[in-house]
Amino acid sequence: MKKRISESTIHRLSLYYRALSLLEKENVVTVSSKELAKREKLTPAQVRKDLSFFGSFGTRGLGYQVAELRSRMSHILGINRDWRVALIGIGNIGSALVSYKEFARQGFHIVKLFDNDQRKIGSNHKGIVVSDIKDLEKELKEDNIEIVIVAVPATVAQYIVDDVVAAGVKAILNFAPINLRVPPEVCLRNENMSMELEYLSFAVVNNHTPKKVI
Amino acid sequence: MKKRISESTIHRLSLYYRALSLLEKENVVTVSSKELAKREKLTPAQVRKDLSFFGSFGTRGLGYQVAELRSRMSHILGINRDWRVALIGIGNIGSALVSYKEFARQGFHIVKLFDNDQRKIGSNHKGIVVSDIKDLEKELKEDNIEIVIVAVPATVAQYIVDDVVAAGVKAILNFAPINLRVPPEVCLRNENMSMELEYLSFAVVNNHTPKKVI
Repeated sequence: MKKRISESTIHRLSLYYRALSLLEKENVVTVSSKELAKREKLTPAQVRKDLSFFGSFGTRGLGYQVAELRSRMSHILGINRDWRVALIGIGNIGSALVSYKEFARQGFHIVKLFDNDQRKIGSNHKGIVVSDIKDLEKELKEDNIEIVIVAVPATVAQYIVDDVVAAGVKAILNFAPINLRVPPEVCLRNENMSMELEYLSFAVVNNHTPKKVI
Repeated sequence: MKKRISESTIHRLSLYYRALSLLEKENVVTVSSKELAKREKLTPAQVRKDLSFFGSFGTRGLGYQVAELRSRMSHILGINRDWRVALIGIGNIGSALVSYKEFARQGFHIVKLFDNDQRKIGSNHKGIVVSDIKDLEKELKEDNIEIVIVAVPATVAQYIVDDVVAAGVKAILNFAPINLRVPPEVCLRNENMSMELEYLSFAVVNNHTPKKVI
């Protein structure tokens, strides 16, 4: 795919996928762009435009086949398969993420854990033995890890990410509150819950309410 | 403040605040826009532009006073004070958030918990007794809650958020994977870790690597 798909479009595909999964559970066979739009509070034109990026799906007047569209969405999003994920940093947020069952339900399996704390290395978290961070590059390669979650302090995050990149990993989800540098071929996403709360406190204090667009 | 500050600017203010906090710990007294930019991998012009939104801070040739700038950033972000936060939904992600110490460290204190599960209502999580969701609007008002974290299933999120809005809360952090509707005076932020992972799998499958801009 050479077209540049926007961040917002990709997030909307995730929303469509979830809406279609719910519809399938409710045994709904077809859905119109209007109905799909209503569920996600978007316009039908937006839905049709988003889906048209990825080929022609619906039939005029009949709408989309729910099961078929859901299956094609899962292929497009790459969640029709399982992913091997490593988590680096078994601190407060890292521990919570290991316990978060939603990831595995969607095919994202945390299969490796790393930390630099001697008291944590070798210990067992949810069936996974924590590896030493000094073996990071070697073990990421050996275990064919494709996605890495970084949950280390901001002060060391760049060094860790450099090693992750050196191991050939192309996809990183970063929880450290710092801007990280990665080469253009690596996809880096940032998650920062504290910064989201600061956004809210800023909004309340300054009476400023821009909405985050999905 | 009537100027429209962009989402990216607000996130960068959070990054500056963190960088300044680290500098203060390192007993650094002054910092140049160049040094601050280098730490966050931005340009000095960007740093000066961002800070100029909020008044004149630095002295030409001398840079910024670290302690003063940090203090003013904390006022701008509204984190020079404590916030009373309620968390709705004590499931997988909700439980993890109650245990996440970072929030309280930054002044965001989770002081109320709500759930609709009879087995959870009345139980104690980290010293907070879980309230019945049916008392949501009343208790949010009585307890002067200013920020609400929503960690309920997507299917019920809109109903919950409607009640939160009815209680007069102006700031919501939503973890449910659904587009929610709120009135213009309410600031809604969305956090979806599974959707971020889907963004990464999409990027790997489609060899597509747009970076999320902070």
